Amino acid sequence: MMKIDVLTLFPEMFDGVFGHSILKKAAENEAVEYNIVNFRDYADNKHKTVDDYPYGGGAGMVLKPQPIFDAVDDLRAHGEKAPRVILLCPQGERYTQRKAEELAELDHLIFVCGHYEGYDERIREHVVSDEISIGDFVLTGGELGAMVVIDSVVRLLPGVLGNEESHMKDSFSTGFLEHPHYTRPAEFRGIKVPDVLMSGNHRLIEEWRAKESLRRTYLRRPDLLEEADLTKDQKKWLEEIKKEGK
Amino acid sequence: MMKIDVLTLFPEMFDGVFGHSILKKAAENEAVEYNIVNFRDYADNKHKTVDDYPYGGGAGMVLKPQPIFDAVDDLRAHGEKAPRVILLCPQGERYTQRKAEELAELDHLIFVCGHYEGYDERIREHVVSDEISIGDFVLTGGELGAMVVIDSVVRLLPGVLGNEESHMKDSFSTGFLEHPHYTRPAEFRGIKVPDVLMSGNHRLIEEWRAKESLRRTYLRRPDLLEEADLTKDQKKWLEEIKKEGK
Repeated sequence: MMKIDVLTLFPEMFDGVFGHSILKKAAENEAVEYNIVNFRDYADNKHKTVDDYPYGGGAGMVLKPQPIFDAVDDLRAHGEKAPRVILLCPQGERYTQRKAEELAELDHLIFVCGHYEGYDERIREHVVSDEISIGDFVLTGGELGAMVVIDSVVRLLPGVLGNEESHMKDSFSTGFLEHPHYTRPAEFRGIKVPDVLMSGNHRLIEEWRAKESLRRTYLRRPDLLEEADLTKDQKKWLEEIKKEGK
Repeated sequence: MMKIDVLTLFPEMFDGVFGHSILKKAAENEAVEYNIVNFRDYADNKHKTVDDYPYGGGAGMVLKPQPIFDAVDDLRAHGEKAPRVILLCPQGERYTQRKAEELAELDHLIFVCGHYEGYDERIREHVVSDEISIGDFVLTGGELGAMVVIDSVVRLLPGVLGNEESHMKDSFSTGFLEHPHYTRPAEFRGIKVPDVLMSGNHRLIEEWRAKESLRRTYLRRPDLLEEADLTKDQKKWLEEIKKEGK
């Protein structure tokens, strides 16, 4: 069972996400155990202060080293193996599906979520093993980033998704974006489902899907094609797509 | 006041995030109004089914067009201006701070969050105005992506952050990653704060911060430097950083 600790000043933020859907089921099925820790509880000062003014002046407050060092020490002592300590921050390595797959192999993850403020640099340098950024945008805290990483990791754990194979065809696992999907009715508000999908001809359907997957990738994420090793069919379709002009 | 509607099958997932911290305060201060809608309520069939098998066969279920078309029609009718309808999906445009700034100027946003399944393509083509991906990783649903976008947008609304200027120095707003921060104590577990920050010399402190911001960007995100218009000082520091070799 994977053990996930989260250090945060806003433990209640996690209730909705960990308490529903797949993340909840994963805990019920003992694929994962969540432990949400308010690191304010580790502050060794009378007023349980976790932040302080920055040395050198300037706006904003900085998270003090002591509460986070001590909280991580304590959580480490309760794990069996050396955990990875993951800091969510805009300066971190860009998160990808490959990193999710790497983290999903581990036994114990500790997430450190700051809020508003910066972190004292000593936390980064001496406590944290991985700094992760989920993208080039600014959030009010690290909590949502931690939830995103946890969600993407937990769904990869054995037995968590109903169909063991259902993440094999995910976008980014195949290297291409997914083809369009359609379901009933065959006509809705005058808009029809493509004929080929109703043809019952499985070879044609597979070809249409493979080509539309390629088309979508070419139109929206040509960068993914640069890394792809195209089959002979895919190369032919790609030429057709370019000629079709959309 | 910005109006944000969210269509989801898991409304409770949003409780923790919208009910705490800055997103809660923003609603209390009437900078934003959240409206979480379970689109299952709009299903016009007896069993309130929202998904169905894919045409052409294959694993997984596909979200039917009717509940989402009708829910968006209803929410549009209650808004004053034409809203943007945002779908979270891995095929969407990559989310960035620039997009957050664009969305923060609007009056009404509708987020559509799918779960597990794909969307019937007619939803993408005829209801949705913006498809957004928060990154190249797979999540169990669109809910966390919507929370991420909403968090990054709402914090930009006027009056939401305590200090009006405090997002001016964000990473990605300046084009560089932030410099390291330190706070008390000056020595913690034998690790010291850099002398310059304790010097009281504001010119030296500003220079150190500007150079360290540049160093971190060079080491971690050299792609950001390609777009940057460096000052004479920055060019000199960058040469020094390259010579220093770290």
